Amino acid sequence: MSAPLQIGLLVFPRVTQLDFTGPLQVFSAVPGAQLHLIWKRIEPVPSDSALIVTPTTTFADCPQLDVICVPGGRGTDDLLNDEEVLDFLRRQAEGAKYVTSVCTGSLALGAAGLLKGYRAATHWSAMEMLSQFGATPTKTRVCVDRNRVTGGGVTAGIDFALTLVSILVNRTAAEAIQLGIEYNPAPPFNSGSPDTAPAEVLAFVKQRIEPLQAYRLDAVERAAARVM
Amino acid sequence: MSAPLQIGLLVFPRVTQLDFTGPLQVFSAVPGAQLHLIWKRIEPVPSDSALIVTPTTTFADCPQLDVICVPGGRGTDDLLNDEEVLDFLRRQAEGAKYVTSVCTGSLALGAAGLLKGYRAATHWSAMEMLSQFGATPTKTRVCVDRNRVTGGGVTAGIDFALTLVSILVNRTAAEAIQLGIEYNPAPPFNSGSPDTAPAEVLAFVKQRIEPLQAYRLDAVERAAARVM
Repeated sequence: MSAPLQIGLLVFPRVTQLDFTGPLQVFSAVPGAQLHLIWKRIEPVPSDSALIVTPTTTFADCPQLDVICVPGGRGTDDLLNDEEVLDFLRRQAEGAKYVTSVCTGSLALGAAGLLKGYRAATHWSAMEMLSQFGATPTKTRVCVDRNRVTGGGVTAGIDFALTLVSILVNRTAAEAIQLGIEYNPAPPFNSGSPDTAPAEVLAFVKQRIEPLQAYRLDAVERAAARVM
Repeated sequence: MSAPLQIGLLVFPRVTQLDFTGPLQVFSAVPGAQLHLIWKRIEPVPSDSALIVTPTTTFADCPQLDVICVPGGRGTDDLLNDEEVLDFLRRQAEGAKYVTSVCTGSLALGAAGLLKGYRAATHWSAMEMLSQFGATPTKTRVCVDRNRVTGGGVTAGIDFALTLVSILVNRTAAEAIQLGIEYNPAPPFNSGSPDTAPAEVLAFVKQRIEPLQAYRLDAVERAAARVM
């Protein structure tokens, strides 16, 4: 009997909860997998919505993971220059089989110096920022480059996790999980990407996030100055 | 200025967390909406995975909701004959604009007598059970019948929530949220429904849930005897 697969997802204040709850649902159905929600301390952290997230372990107590996954969200910006977080990611990445992210979590991997020379995906609004960390921005739903597996924005975490299960276990295991969560999506509109959204919807969303983008870009540039 | 939209999601032990975290992510982006995670008591409840869910309000303290939503999961079975839960649902349903569910949450609506004469969706594994509550099982991703809006299994909650936002607010609001969460799904496999899954995958999943189905059917039959 082999040791259980250790899968850990970073959680942090203002994480976009669906970035990790989607993958968590998928990974939890992997037979024998042990799941961890990890933060500096064990105290509950607020997500970006009404969900309060209770970590199951801390940086200090977390075992060596087979899969380390960093979700995204507005809270990502404050991870990019947080040495305690970046040290944890670097330390886990050394021994992990897969170093992964969903959405803007890839910026944190980049800030830890873990995406230099790798192709990587992220949320569409952060795509160009990846290159500041020496990564090649890749506009795919899931990007697999050697042992770096990165997903696009938010809901891409489900596609990402199913892909990773097919690599970690096998295709049949991933298909069984897909059937269990009835992942047979039928979006009522065709607005899920900047390439398909109506122009006025894209303009509205871009305008709304503009002030936040300046804050993020500043954090990225400071982090990149250290890494590159 | 109109009153904020009150949207409440029931949480309970062994809820399938993605059943409500998907809709929660969507609803949280509705301008001015107030979100509630509701259970009998305020103490954290375990979900079906590593996520511990902290309710934000209780049955006693919850305001009248505009939208009441019941997610599903194995824990649903224990709601079907729990008068405290069913009373809360009936009480909220009287004043709510929309009475909704995701996945097997529709069984709880049915057990509360709230789906008699309505079409409704649910997880594929529970489809036939809906008819015991006088509902017409409907194999669609999202089912809208007057003010009952019900989603299919687990991930259908995202399609459900975007559909409901388009009804509650408008189509542009739903499209902006869809773009924000980059909901442009690309499942790596085509196994998300019993109609498309490979035969051996369907057989494997059916066999695995068989013992659980007997438990559920017993709970459904006892509840139906009271309702019908």
